[in-house]
Amino acid sequence: MKFKLEHTSKTSKARAGTLTTDHGEIQTPVFMPVGTLGNVKAMTNRDLEESDANIILGNTYHLNLRPGMPLMEKAGGLHQFMNYHKNILTDSGGFQVFSLAALAKITDEGVKLRSHLDGSKWFFTPEFVIDVQRQIGSDIMMVLDECAPYPCTEEYAKKAVERTTKWAKRSMEHFKKTKPLYGHDQTMFAIVQGSTYKNLREQSCKELVELDFEGYAIGGVSVGEPPEHIPEISDLCTNFLPENKPRYLMGVGTPKDILNCISAGIDMFDCVMPTRNARNGTVFTRKGKIIIKGAKVKEDFEPIDKECGCYTCRNHSRAYVRHLFNAGEKLSGQLATIHNIYFYLWLTKEARKAIFNNRFEEFKEEILQYY
Amino acid sequence: MKFKLEHTSKTSKARAGTLTTDHGEIQTPVFMPVGTLGNVKAMTNRDLEESDANIILGNTYHLNLRPGMPLMEKAGGLHQFMNYHKNILTDSGGFQVFSLAALAKITDEGVKLRSHLDGSKWFFTPEFVIDVQRQIGSDIMMVLDECAPYPCTEEYAKKAVERTTKWAKRSMEHFKKTKPLYGHDQTMFAIVQGSTYKNLREQSCKELVELDFEGYAIGGVSVGEPPEHIPEISDLCTNFLPENKPRYLMGVGTPKDILNCISAGIDMFDCVMPTRNARNGTVFTRKGKIIIKGAKVKEDFEPIDKECGCYTCRNHSRAYVRHLFNAGEKLSGQLATIHNIYFYLWLTKEARKAIFNNRFEEFKEEILQYY
Repeated sequence: MKFKLEHTSKTSKARAGTLTTDHGEIQTPVFMPVGTLGNVKAMTNRDLEESDANIILGNTYHLNLRPGMPLMEKAGGLHQFMNYHKNILTDSGGFQVFSLAALAKITDEGVKLRSHLDGSKWFFTPEFVIDVQRQIGSDIMMVLDECAPYPCTEEYAKKAVERTTKWAKRSMEHFKKTKPLYGHDQTMFAIVQGSTYKNLREQSCKELVELDFEGYAIGGVSVGEPPEHIPEISDLCTNFLPENKPRYLMGVGTPKDILNCISAGIDMFDCVMPTRNARNGTVFTRKGKIIIKGAKVKEDFEPIDKECGCYTCRNHSRAYVRHLFNAGEKLSGQLATIHNIYFYLWLTKEARKAIFNNRFEEFKEEILQYY
Repeated sequence: MKFKLEHTSKTSKARAGTLTTDHGEIQTPVFMPVGTLGNVKAMTNRDLEESDANIILGNTYHLNLRPGMPLMEKAGGLHQFMNYHKNILTDSGGFQVFSLAALAKITDEGVKLRSHLDGSKWFFTPEFVIDVQRQIGSDIMMVLDECAPYPCTEEYAKKAVERTTKWAKRSMEHFKKTKPLYGHDQTMFAIVQGSTYKNLREQSCKELVELDFEGYAIGGVSVGEPPEHIPEISDLCTNFLPENKPRYLMGVGTPKDILNCISAGIDMFDCVMPTRNARNGTVFTRKGKIIIKGAKVKEDFEPIDKECGCYTCRNHSRAYVRHLFNAGEKLSGQLATIHNIYFYLWLTKEARKAIFNNRFEEFKEEILQYY
């Protein structure tokens, strides 16, 4: 992987860059649609292609259970299995350990957990999740981390930081000892922890930077903390992360969060919000959110967003999409998903343009008046 | 509407024709995907376009409830509302009266019924369903008929035939008195009833032919009778229906039913089978049905049907589609629906070619060995 920092805003830490892997270029800032189980929910690859997404997420924990790694290897990895030939980043499963905590037991060695599906036992170690990600063949792998819940004591958060650093070291060693399986290169990012404790975030950044990863993620946000912490933590961490490496804020977020964290120097984002909200009948536009299944748009024959170029906005009215939701037709979620993903990609592409034009803060304000 | 009979098979009653409306040509035999509520479930218009469908169904009973006719008129009719500009045929609601019988009371005047959604009261008369279909703006409207259940006594079936004829007369009168609302022409087909009684089917055909409709449907099949009745009834009715008018067999069926009824001289078919089965994990191929969510195809990296040109078969393996079903991902139903509708359209297009080449019966046998 190569990362080239191309431009930094004069009025904030907002930056534009290009990340290059064997599956092509990713221009940052970038939003990465979530494709947990080997598909972005309700989207075909063609829909994804048209959204201009150049990278999507997969999830190590979930893919390890379904379809499972024997099948994944036979398929030739996730790119082949999905027939998706752009970039894939896989989360390590660290967040699933957090979100399925009742089923997990964490020790220094790793995480003993039971499948949420069938109760089968798994032992997730830093080494194991790399092995699985080798089998998946993701372009960007993530280390196993310990994601502390919110709120948590400083003592707890400190232990999680220290364990995350130890695991990152083991990860780097194992990464160097193992090889990609499918002929394309793979890289690996570390994950910064530290909850809302500034000293711990600083410590985590410094320890991980020491290990010289090709990219750094900020984890342990979007776990229930007040939303104002998100740009604060991002702003703090990017002070301690190298300029010349990509920074990925995990699981974030709303259009507002994304724009504010671009100002804080973040390059990469992922979140289930656009896809999940779409299926639940909320869509994002240049002029704010709309409850597209609501009675307000019943007789509104305008597209969801007049300025949007997505398939849904080119072809259908709010009233039609609302009718489909109201009638329980699955196409409603498909059309809303196509729009929301297109919008999120538009948002980060416009942010990038604005950064190059030294007007990112203005662009942000234009959007944020509606969010 | 114009119908041109272009070729009749030398070895059966199979025939090829072209039906022309203001929304374009429909080459017969043809399968018409079911789009009850203003969309073919889980399919975008683009997916429909690629399946080569030139006509889809809508449903008067359902559309009258949702989105309702005030909105339908404001939208400029169903073609505009859906942004679908090929042909639409609407069923009259007669079949919903049958399938929701506990909520309906039939008299000579019409059908008093309660909405299955909110209990609201409606009075479906032959005149009312035409008014609604004028509001929908379907290219082909259907008369209100009385669909007898199976089994039913000859006496019951005879009364239903007589009522259906009376209603057809009223329909014709009302049709002539009313006008299309959206600038394109509309036609109306009558519906033959008579259950499994040959004499009653003959009576129904003769009475309706007398009224000189532009097309004739055969209703009251696929209501629980043994499947061998379907081609028998079709074969009988087409003996009494005019050669130069299209014949539509309502709610049928399996690939086997469709091919056998093409032999019996039927031109048009509709059925929820390809879409419903798709969502439930069964797909149709040139070599028979496959349970695509089943364990048998777990490691099968071939497309659903190697010879199929649909988006799903061009891009994805059985193993991938099976994984999506297994993981409960909605994309599974989307991909399977795209394939099944494409397959059904392929089937009737190939049937048409075979009719022109005087080898329809051979083509039918090639397919039926697997069905």
